[in-house]
Amino acid sequence: MLSVVILGTGNVAFHLAEVLSSNNSVELLQVYGRNKTKLQAFEPFCDTTDNLGKLAAAAIYLVAVSDGAIAALTQQLAGLDGVVAHTSGAVSLEVIDHPRPGVFYPLQTFTRDKKIPFAEVPICLEARHPNDLRLLAQLAGKLSGAVHRIDSAQRRQLHLAAIWVNNFTNHLLYIGQQLCEEKGLSFSLLQPLIQETVDKIQQLSPKEAQTGPARRRDVQTIQTHLDMLEAPLQKKIYQLLSESIKSTYEKEL
Amino acid sequence: MLSVVILGTGNVAFHLAEVLSSNNSVELLQVYGRNKTKLQAFEPFCDTTDNLGKLAAAAIYLVAVSDGAIAALTQQLAGLDGVVAHTSGAVSLEVIDHPRPGVFYPLQTFTRDKKIPFAEVPICLEARHPNDLRLLAQLAGKLSGAVHRIDSAQRRQLHLAAIWVNNFTNHLLYIGQQLCEEKGLSFSLLQPLIQETVDKIQQLSPKEAQTGPARRRDVQTIQTHLDMLEAPLQKKIYQLLSESIKSTYEKEL
Repeated sequence: MLSVVILGTGNVAFHLAEVLSSNNSVELLQVYGRNKTKLQAFEPFCDTTDNLGKLAAAAIYLVAVSDGAIAALTQQLAGLDGVVAHTSGAVSLEVIDHPRPGVFYPLQTFTRDKKIPFAEVPICLEARHPNDLRLLAQLAGKLSGAVHRIDSAQRRQLHLAAIWVNNFTNHLLYIGQQLCEEKGLSFSLLQPLIQETVDKIQQLSPKEAQTGPARRRDVQTIQTHLDMLEAPLQKKIYQLLSESIKSTYEKEL
Repeated sequence: MLSVVILGTGNVAFHLAEVLSSNNSVELLQVYGRNKTKLQAFEPFCDTTDNLGKLAAAAIYLVAVSDGAIAALTQQLAGLDGVVAHTSGAVSLEVIDHPRPGVFYPLQTFTRDKKIPFAEVPICLEARHPNDLRLLAQLAGKLSGAVHRIDSAQRRQLHLAAIWVNNFTNHLLYIGQQLCEEKGLSFSLLQPLIQETVDKIQQLSPKEAQTGPARRRDVQTIQTHLDMLEAPLQKKIYQLLSESIKSTYEKEL
């Protein structure tokens, strides 16, 4: 049985602990965190500790802490046997100060109160030693049907792309909601459109799926919208995104 | 039985013709268009004509032409009895030069080759006369379970919000795809993330669902991403969206 210790108490740590503790072929031994209050949420899953000196001996240590804390924390794990893998999209393998470094990056957005269908989450793996990569692949394969070997440069690019399709998209949905609420309109009116936006690109490429005033160079509608927007930052974003759409289709002419 | 004539041969006209012609309690009499080649696509649904003088007598005329063409076209319908309703999100009721003006705005993105589950599409209605509103509601109710009375100012705002959640979101997906392909990565790696982005906001508000470097003020990751982006316009958009996310959560502190 694969034994695992998780270090960290954030959203990624929480979802990993939840899914690993319920998997019969994985033994989640322990979760480590500095913050005792945050650790409490992990008590239903396994043992917890706030003492690095008391880490259990495991085959894999998953370091799910903030990007800036990975180097310092992994330094303190020098004495441990086992693969030490971080879960970050943006941090290179080399940042891990341990002889058996690895990466176990689940390409998904994790929020505490929202369950994730882990079986479909792409898990991007990297390791210095082939045996360690196999070990990580064994663990990943127990959680997901989409396990990929991705090097640090590719992973960094994937993470950047993820910012666009998730973080920025979510913010556009937020702005859409604000615009509705400003005029007493229910955001739920937009839900079928939002769903279709995503459904469409199962059949069409985003380039083919594009519609709207910027694509058809409807200058008058664009101007009306710019006049309607009150927040200067929203005006600028509207302008730049419209410009970017226009230039995407200009190249085609 | 409700009789309908559609004017226009674009995507909205096509999807309306498709769904109306297959509805047993609606009689789609005719589609009008100036362009004979485009009209051919409508021949499976009903009669077609490119002669405004030969329009059939119908209870409802749906004017699904480009925003800028609505005024001029509806002027030429002065002699017709029946409600003359356009299908645009951005054009006010008053632009229709006919004694029985109306609006029949399906809030959805229409692409020719993608079927739409019409039953969930919000249809936003407006009319000058209560009887005409009832007539439009009768037609809308045969297609969709989400029929709303929305005045011109609200509809304009909804349309603006729709640009953000659909047009701009789709463009972000396009940029995400470009970033993947630049480094030989499959865009399909991002599909579960994109799906989750939309699924999340069924349970959480977009404000709660936000994650990423801008929300947690991870200046280093933001700088790395700006350095990675090659297109100046993408750099600017990344910067402004990050700024907008930061300011959204600043207000909370």
